[in-house]
Amino acid sequence: MSTTVAEALDLIREIPGFPEPGILFRDLTPVFGDAAAFAAVIDALGEAVGDEVDLLAGVEARGFVLAAAVGYARGLGVALVRKPGKLPAVAGRVDYALEYGTATLELPVDSVRRGQRVAIVDDVLATGGTVAATAKLIEQAGATSTGVSVVLELGELGGRNLLGGLPVHALRTV
Amino acid sequence: MSTTVAEALDLIREIPGFPEPGILFRDLTPVFGDAAAFAAVIDALGEAVGDEVDLLAGVEARGFVLAAAVGYARGLGVALVRKPGKLPAVAGRVDYALEYGTATLELPVDSVRRGQRVAIVDDVLATGGTVAATAKLIEQAGATSTGVSVVLELGELGGRNLLGGLPVHALRTV
Repeated sequence: MSTTVAEALDLIREIPGFPEPGILFRDLTPVFGDAAAFAAVIDALGEAVGDEVDLLAGVEARGFVLAAAVGYARGLGVALVRKPGKLPAVAGRVDYALEYGTATLELPVDSVRRGQRVAIVDDVLATGGTVAATAKLIEQAGATSTGVSVVLELGELGGRNLLGGLPVHALRTV
Repeated sequence: MSTTVAEALDLIREIPGFPEPGILFRDLTPVFGDAAAFAAVIDALGEAVGDEVDLLAGVEARGFVLAAAVGYARGLGVALVRKPGKLPAVAGRVDYALEYGTATLELPVDSVRRGQRVAIVDDVLATGGTVAATAKLIEQAGATSTGVSVVLELGELGGRNLLGGLPVHALRTV
């Protein structure tokens, strides 16, 4: 019943033209739905975040799935970075550029404490905008980003170049 | 370092007037951010979902946090029920009434298989609209909802009456 990480990642589906023409969407639905594949991916991400970490940050919405499960697996809490308007009390807010237009992320009050070492967990590293904004929120809270662990890195988009040397751990680079 | 479920639930903050006047928002941020409290809540939800279950369903976005961690803890996969427009391929769609207006939830293709026993996991059971819609999506996929496990049930809103006898397991009813 055990599944290797490679077998789990092979379940990811590629869907052309979503959410915009020209984008190849990576659909992790089959990974999340398969208990053994899900566990394999979470264990691998849990190793990838390393030992020098006090807290995980997950970005709405798919990042919540991964950060929460890795947090439980590793005995860590999670900070939930949200899209605007969802939080009753905001500790920080960062606007960032998207391919088309801009987006905003918000950090809840009291989710990240000064001095904490925070690892970011997400599904896909694409252009890096979301991760860079999350790292900025963590820094604004007086904490340190230790790196970002993702299931997939889309290498040709060069997202890691936007991250100012933040370590990137990808289970697979495509 | 261990935290009881009651201690964990005492970390929930009440914020009046969010997201609408007259609503008392229950903020789980401090629970998610505290490793021991988070683990205690996830373990308790993991027990609450019972043994006769093949898959968990989590609803965007806070439900993703809980369903994913419980899924990992219990060795189960998760189906991610989404707000409209997020999915490249939709298996089912349900519109439901909110206090003000209506909302829609969508189930990804291939996330729930015919015949599976699916437990719903969410943060708060309020009016029950979201959970009822999720149970309908599960049923439309040819699967069975075994119950709903939540951190908090807001008893006076009578949400469980909307659920047609679906078992409700709440870590705390307020």
